[in-house]
Amino acid sequence: MTMNAQILLASRPTGEATADNFRLVQTPVPEPADGQVLVRHHYLSLDPYMRGRMNDAKSYAQPQPLDSVMIGGTVGEVVASKHPGFAAGDKVVGMGGWQQYSLVDGGAAGMLRKVDTTHIPLSAYLGSVGMPGATAWYGLTQIIAPKAGETVVVSAASGAVGSVVGQLAKARGCRAVGLAGGPDKCRYVVEELGFDACIDYKAHGDLKSLLKALKEACPNGIDGYFENVGGLILDAVMLRMNAFGRIAFCGMIAGYDGVPIPMANPSLILVSRLKLEGFIVSEHMELWPQALKELGTMVATGKLKFRESVAQGIEQAPEAFIGLLKGRNFGKQLVKLI
Amino acid sequence: MTMNAQILLASRPTGEATADNFRLVQTPVPEPADGQVLVRHHYLSLDPYMRGRMNDAKSYAQPQPLDSVMIGGTVGEVVASKHPGFAAGDKVVGMGGWQQYSLVDGGAAGMLRKVDTTHIPLSAYLGSVGMPGATAWYGLTQIIAPKAGETVVVSAASGAVGSVVGQLAKARGCRAVGLAGGPDKCRYVVEELGFDACIDYKAHGDLKSLLKALKEACPNGIDGYFENVGGLILDAVMLRMNAFGRIAFCGMIAGYDGVPIPMANPSLILVSRLKLEGFIVSEHMELWPQALKELGTMVATGKLKFRESVAQGIEQAPEAFIGLLKGRNFGKQLVKLI
Repeated sequence: MTMNAQILLASRPTGEATADNFRLVQTPVPEPADGQVLVRHHYLSLDPYMRGRMNDAKSYAQPQPLDSVMIGGTVGEVVASKHPGFAAGDKVVGMGGWQQYSLVDGGAAGMLRKVDTTHIPLSAYLGSVGMPGATAWYGLTQIIAPKAGETVVVSAASGAVGSVVGQLAKARGCRAVGLAGGPDKCRYVVEELGFDACIDYKAHGDLKSLLKALKEACPNGIDGYFENVGGLILDAVMLRMNAFGRIAFCGMIAGYDGVPIPMANPSLILVSRLKLEGFIVSEHMELWPQALKELGTMVATGKLKFRESVAQGIEQAPEAFIGLLKGRNFGKQLVKLI
Repeated sequence: MTMNAQILLASRPTGEATADNFRLVQTPVPEPADGQVLVRHHYLSLDPYMRGRMNDAKSYAQPQPLDSVMIGGTVGEVVASKHPGFAAGDKVVGMGGWQQYSLVDGGAAGMLRKVDTTHIPLSAYLGSVGMPGATAWYGLTQIIAPKAGETVVVSAASGAVGSVVGQLAKARGCRAVGLAGGPDKCRYVVEELGFDACIDYKAHGDLKSLLKALKEACPNGIDGYFENVGGLILDAVMLRMNAFGRIAFCGMIAGYDGVPIPMANPSLILVSRLKLEGFIVSEHMELWPQALKELGTMVATGKLKFRESVAQGIEQAPEAFIGLLKGRNFGKQLVKLI
């Protein structure tokens, strides 16, 4: 009997998430019933939003139940199908969770989608041509909506979302400035991804130093900010925002561990007439086709670059996830399952 | 020789503004040159934004220069005109400042506007049918943009701006909930202005108590918030906002004294997918005719109620202004100059 290795949420974190919060179990791979599709996962996506699901707190989504398979995006291949829309060998993207196999209702809207890997690598459907890419596209085009010549700043710039934000901004004629942790990531953001500048936030631990670095990198001020982090960086960027600046709130990793981090000076919202808007990309599915079309074309033609950190094997998922929360990944964090 | 009593900014406040920051002087009333209009002010408007101008800090407007007449909106009557567009006896609204008379360039756009006092009292052009009214209208209709049935909360609800916000929200079929300081103001907000509920924030000095009061007053949560205050009230309201709620940042009196007041939990912007937007109504003059038409019609037909706190005599302006900043006024704060 083939076994399916699964990772369950064993306990909720108090403070930082640890490997003890997860548990690996083995269960038999199930057989598809009528209408179902059995998928073998090739890659599991690890994303910061998962940290929020581990809490039992009010948020935009239901908490992850204890003792059930951790939620997560997956790409893979259909191994058996009792649904007419899918056949063995189809490459698919879905929400299979932290496990090697999943059974999916082939008729449920949005649960499983066939993808074309002729010009786009399968793993990219978890990154630049998937949820992180759509997140970048939505925040940049629908909230920041930059004009050519404006300056767009993005935190976590070497990551799955941030890297796309900057490249999309460049494609629209903007000055793109990243924030990333460490000289290697910053070099990659400028030299490989084509940002105009990248600030190593680890080299600027206080507000004054960060403000100086932002002033140098953004000589005309900041018109749009794609917020992935929160805390000190948000405070500094707000002080450098031009009048009528826009801030898209996508993630606030700095606050996921349960301790709210204040915004130092909200009166800047009035003083600089800022617009701040939070969004969850899964609530705007009507725009995904438009987003994924642009992103897919850019990846297929080499105009959108990305990098992946790949952990090998489902048993590595917890450590890779904790590393992601600490910024140890470099590019999109994946777990390879085959 | 007729004299013009004027109040100058004598010094910048360190912390709270005091009467010592102002100086009363007497100068001769000037004669209009060609193209100029001499206006005798009947009322001077006192508004919270003036506190911001007293600081020498980056803001959306230039600081008020020292030793010059304090900026301020005025209504009055033309006493002499050398501009063909104005004649003695015309009732006018302008930015005459804290003084009894002003000389105005009759041709300068937006500096002086003739008003009709047949159905609308002259002083209302400094309140519900003036800048405060337009501020309320803009924030409510352009940023909060509430649908019928939604709940709109406004702080400083008995004031010149807040009172209009709530009445406009009611006219659009919303539940209007105010926050005001003290039982008298709260009674007025509900019984006279027709709000559905009003919370005495002075009776709820901590977050827990304020949250409970908001829950009772807003059983379906909060969809729109018109922010006039900042601080604890903002933190509490954010915790009660529904998904996709909108916050219009108009004033933040609590922060004008120079000490920034943090926002406790900005991650709620993401969690509840909020939109926060700051605005200065003078940057949206193209919408004033539409706003003032609606507001003027409502005042003339008795559908928009307001109340005024009137100090008598220019020499009372500093104390009345300090009282305004401390919330001692009840309704629109004016100084009567004749």
